[in-house]
Amino acid sequence: MPELFESKVYARRIAAAVEQAAAAGLDGLIIGPGPELAYLSGSWISSHERLTALVIPVSGRPLLVAPEVDAADLGASAVPELDIDVRGWRDGESAHQLAVAALQGQGPVALGSSLTADHVLALQELLGERRTVLATAALKELFMRKDAAEIEQLREASHAIDRVHAQVPGLLRPGRTEAEVAADLEQLILAEHEVVDFIIVGSGPNGANPHHSFSERVLEAGDPVVLDIGGTYGVGYHSDSTRTYVTGGEVDAAPEEFRRLYEVLFRAQEAAVAAVRPGVTAESIDLVARDIITEAGYGEYFSHRTGHGIGLSTHEEPFIMAGNQLVLEEGMAFSVEPGIYLSGRFGARIEDIVAVTAEGRECLTQQQRVLK
Amino acid sequence: MPELFESKVYARRIAAAVEQAAAAGLDGLIIGPGPELAYLSGSWISSHERLTALVIPVSGRPLLVAPEVDAADLGASAVPELDIDVRGWRDGESAHQLAVAALQGQGPVALGSSLTADHVLALQELLGERRTVLATAALKELFMRKDAAEIEQLREASHAIDRVHAQVPGLLRPGRTEAEVAADLEQLILAEHEVVDFIIVGSGPNGANPHHSFSERVLEAGDPVVLDIGGTYGVGYHSDSTRTYVTGGEVDAAPEEFRRLYEVLFRAQEAAVAAVRPGVTAESIDLVARDIITEAGYGEYFSHRTGHGIGLSTHEEPFIMAGNQLVLEEGMAFSVEPGIYLSGRFGARIEDIVAVTAEGRECLTQQQRVLK
Repeated sequence: MPELFESKVYARRIAAAVEQAAAAGLDGLIIGPGPELAYLSGSWISSHERLTALVIPVSGRPLLVAPEVDAADLGASAVPELDIDVRGWRDGESAHQLAVAALQGQGPVALGSSLTADHVLALQELLGERRTVLATAALKELFMRKDAAEIEQLREASHAIDRVHAQVPGLLRPGRTEAEVAADLEQLILAEHEVVDFIIVGSGPNGANPHHSFSERVLEAGDPVVLDIGGTYGVGYHSDSTRTYVTGGEVDAAPEEFRRLYEVLFRAQEAAVAAVRPGVTAESIDLVARDIITEAGYGEYFSHRTGHGIGLSTHEEPFIMAGNQLVLEEGMAFSVEPGIYLSGRFGARIEDIVAVTAEGRECLTQQQRVLK
Repeated sequence: MPELFESKVYARRIAAAVEQAAAAGLDGLIIGPGPELAYLSGSWISSHERLTALVIPVSGRPLLVAPEVDAADLGASAVPELDIDVRGWRDGESAHQLAVAALQGQGPVALGSSLTADHVLALQELLGERRTVLATAALKELFMRKDAAEIEQLREASHAIDRVHAQVPGLLRPGRTEAEVAADLEQLILAEHEVVDFIIVGSGPNGANPHHSFSERVLEAGDPVVLDIGGTYGVGYHSDSTRTYVTGGEVDAAPEEFRRLYEVLFRAQEAAVAAVRPGVTAESIDLVARDIITEAGYGEYFSHRTGHGIGLSTHEEPFIMAGNQLVLEEGMAFSVEPGIYLSGRFGARIEDIVAVTAEGRECLTQQQRVLK
C-alpha cells in the first residue's frame, strides 16, 4: 500500500479502541495482522506462524510485538509515529508471553478476528482463567461507522471499479474464453487499483454458481455473463461490483427467461438500494429485494444474503441478511447484491456499494445497470 | 490447483487422522480451509467469515460443512469421491452448530491451525466445557512425515525453482531496479509453477533485511543481491530457494567483507545440510550453521532460525532452531537457510530444501551455490 492516513488518524482510532474496550469491561485487546491491525496502525504486515500482535491495554501503553526479522516492514505504517512500544522478538523467545504480559488485570481480553487458531490457543493458555471474546464485537462501532475520509476512500475505489466495468462490453466477444476475459480484467483492475482481489466471469451455466471464478468455457453470442470484480485501493479499502452482461451485446439473443428474470432483479436491486437510510434495519433491506424476487416466483433461486459490509476487508459487518436487526447508521457502507441463479442454465446478479448518509444513501458505484 | 492425488490417498490420510485423534484421547478434529484441509481432502476452498470446516469425529462419519454458495468449489477436490457427508448451509443457519453437533462425547476437540479467531471463539462457545487443543499437535506426525509421493512433489517443485534461479544472472544487470527484476521473476516463476508465492530481491543494504520484498532501488555493478523466491507447485506443495548474487556477475567488484562473509556462510550452510540425517535433533542442525558463523565473528548478524519445514504450507514444522529437540526422521523436509546481515550495508543468505532419507538426506534444490 503506498498511502497512509495522517498518523493522528491512527492515534485517534487507538484512543477510541481503548475507550470502547474499557466500556466493555475488557482488560485490553490483542490484534493480529489483517484489516483490524491496518485500521489501528496502518500496517499490513503479514501473518504467519511467528506472532505479530498489537496489544492495547485499557491502562498502560500499547505494545506491538513482532518478529525482529519483520520489524523493518513496520516502517511502511504509522507505527514509527505512534506513541506505542515496539518489541522485536527473536526465535526462542515467547512472543505470546510478551503479548500477555502487556495486559494488566484478570478481566476478559478481546482477540482480533484475524488471529489464527495456533495463536489463539497459545494466548488462551497463557491467559489462564481470563475469558477471551472477539475484538470485532468490542470494536464493532468503530469499524462499522466510517468517517468521511474512509467513505472517500470507498468512493474512489468504487469509481475505480466503475471505470473497469465501463470497458467490459468490449471484452465479451463470442469465441473468447472466460479465462481470456479474466486475463484482460486483471490488467484493467491493476491499472486502477493496488491489488486485484478477485475476478468472476460466469458465462452461461457458470453464472448460476455465485462463487464461480472463471474457466476455459468459450463465450457464445447471447450468453448471459455474471461479472463480479474487485480490488484493493489506496490505503487498503476495497472495491466490489457486479454487473450482468450479454455476450456480444446482443441482448435480444439472450434466452427469453433470462431477460424476464433480469428485469425482476433490476427492480429488486434498485428498490433495495432506495430503501437504505438511517434508522431501518439491515434485514429490512434484504427483505425489500427478497420480496420482489419471491413475488415474481424466483425466491428459491436467490440463495444468498443481499449484501455485506465493506471497508478494509471485502466482507465485514454489517451483513444485510434475514435475522440481522442492526439499525443502519450514517457512515455504514455495504454491498446490495441480490442475484437469481437457475442451475445448469444461467444466473444474474447486480451489485452496488452503498453508504448510509445523514438523510439517506449514496450509491458509491455508479456504472449503469441496464443490460447490454 | 490442477492436480490431485488419487482419492484413496486422502481416504488413507483421514483414516490416519482418526487414529491419531483417538490415540490422543480426542473426540475429533475441526479443520478449516488451508493446508490442513488440503492435506486431508485435496480442497483449497477459501476461508472467510462464513465457516467451512471438515469435522472428523473419532467415531462416526466425517462431515464437511460449507456455505451452499461455495459448495461447487468442492468439485475440484477429492471430496465427491470420499466417504464423507457434505452439508451446504445457507445464511441464517448456524454453521458452527452444525459442526459441533457432528462430534460425540465430552472430551477435548482439536482445531485446525488455520481457523481464524472469529470461528475459534464461536466453536469454543458451543463446545462449552470441552477443552480445545491445536490439531497440528495431534496431526504432527502425519504432516511432518511425508510419503514418497509428497517428497516427489517437493522434489519437482524444487527443480522448478532451480530452473528459475538458473536464469537470474542474466536479469541482474546494473541500472535495473529491484522491481524490474521482480517483474521478470514473476513471469519466470509462473512459467514453472501454479502460483507465485513471494519474491525477495534485496540489493545492497536491502539485502540486510531478511524480509525485504523489492523496491525501486537501482542495482549497481558489484552490488550483492539476496534473491529468495518460491511458488506453489502441482497439488499445492511449495518451492522456496535463496541464492545470493553479485550484480553484473562481477564478483571482484563486490565489497571485500561481503566476499569474506559469503565464504563463511557457504561453509556454514554446506555443513548444516551435510549434518541432516535421521536421529539427530532439529536444533543440532541449527547449531552446526550457527557455530561456524559465530566462530568467524558474525554470530550476532545471523538473526533468525536456520530453517522451517515445507510442504502444503511454506512454513510448517519442523522448525530448525535452538530449543527444538525434535528428532529428525525419514520423510521430514525443511529449509536450511542461514544468513548474515550487516545493517545498512548488505546481506547474504543461502537456502536449500532438504529431505531426510533413510540413511541421510537428499538436497532437493540443486542450483549451484557458488557466488556469481
